[in-house]
Amino acid sequence: MIQFYDLAGARDDQRLSPYCWRTRLALEHKGLSYDAIAWRFTEKDLIAFTGQGACPVIVDNGKAVHDSWAIMEYLEATYPAHPFFDSPQAKAHALFIKHWTEQVLHVGLTKQVVLDVHDMLADRDKPHFRSTREQRLGMTLEAFSADRDAVLPAFRAALSPLRTTLQKIPFVSGERPSYADYIVFGGFQWARVSSERDVLEPSDPIYAWRESMLGLFGGLPAKTPARGAILAK
Amino acid sequence: MIQFYDLAGARDDQRLSPYCWRTRLALEHKGLSYDAIAWRFTEKDLIAFTGQGACPVIVDNGKAVHDSWAIMEYLEATYPAHPFFDSPQAKAHALFIKHWTEQVLHVGLTKQVVLDVHDMLADRDKPHFRSTREQRLGMTLEAFSADRDAVLPAFRAALSPLRTTLQKIPFVSGERPSYADYIVFGGFQWARVSSERDVLEPSDPIYAWRESMLGLFGGLPAKTPARGAILAK
Repeated sequence: MIQFYDLAGARDDQRLSPYCWRTRLALEHKGLSYDAIAWRFTEKDLIAFTGQGACPVIVDNGKAVHDSWAIMEYLEATYPAHPFFDSPQAKAHALFIKHWTEQVLHVGLTKQVVLDVHDMLADRDKPHFRSTREQRLGMTLEAFSADRDAVLPAFRAALSPLRTTLQKIPFVSGERPSYADYIVFGGFQWARVSSERDVLEPSDPIYAWRESMLGLFGGLPAKTPARGAILAK
Repeated sequence: MIQFYDLAGARDDQRLSPYCWRTRLALEHKGLSYDAIAWRFTEKDLIAFTGQGACPVIVDNGKAVHDSWAIMEYLEATYPAHPFFDSPQAKAHALFIKHWTEQVLHVGLTKQVVLDVHDMLADRDKPHFRSTREQRLGMTLEAFSADRDAVLPAFRAALSPLRTTLQKIPFVSGERPSYADYIVFGGFQWARVSSERDVLEPSDPIYAWRESMLGLFGGLPAKTPARGAILAK
């Protein structure tokens, strides 16, 4: 049984990290048994054995691995069945998609949802989150988020390479979803779990793809409650 | 011998189209013999047999194919040796890179070099080019280009997913260049052949990658003269 440290919000069932979602879907993809342990920013002592302070972390037969890409590589090498990539080129190209996801999708999503992410965290995590993010952003979360409605159309426009790809093929990886899809989906799942705002319009091909992704692995991603659904209760 | 219709500027040796460069490098990659025929926008009658008016066009054993992606697929199916992609996933992922190239790289490059592209065209091509582009842009080429210096830093910043990828692996396709590299390089070669402006700083990892790409196939891309070199004479 693999131990998987998975960032959580105030509630244990709010698993929000885009990087942890990559790892969770990777574990599912490989059909591995794992225990997804709710972990919070203020519990850095629990993962200190990795020599760093961020999740995802996995421990497999006593071996600890951190960083979602390194975990993916570890899983691919250790459990070669159900490969994430069907060739070296596919993996190289996925690296470009990873960087686009982190530098365009995640950056744009941060503008849209960072205030909501803060609000959903455990109270003891909030000061850490606020101070580290505000230092990075150079302003308060509130000031940074003030124009999020105004820039939403530009954010959607910036998703155009993803949109036009999904107009031609059902998944980023082609006929079937794979690790490149998990990378991109992690961002959208982070937004869905953290915020009532839906950054996508229902007519967007990305919206339909996200629906398909939510249904993977017996609907595991969909079972993690959307923030909107929680707040509506 | 394949006939390859290849967009040219005023001089026959100025081959500038980013899409034609994809096709030329694809033909080289496959080791095929071809005749790269200088073609100009006003010679639509020469390629009317394809039912459309844009290059690249190839004619192979009487079969005409147009559109760079369709030509790539035709060549891969007809000449399977030296494949462009080593798997279906690699091809799917390349589609995302294609869309990023056309929607981010080409759009940004258009701002930087469209005025220079106009200036290098054959005189008979200039009115067609100006009127079609100005209609698309909604303003004169000069008005559209007026802020090109001001937006150059933002353009370079937008290349970040490519830059960080090339910090980790030597080519977009991994250890060896392949079709995804040809797609991206086509944009930079278009700018190099058309304009004195160099959009990349020498310290940029993309610059070093472009140098490697210029040396492919016996240095064929480098042999096509840079606009700066021509104007300096």
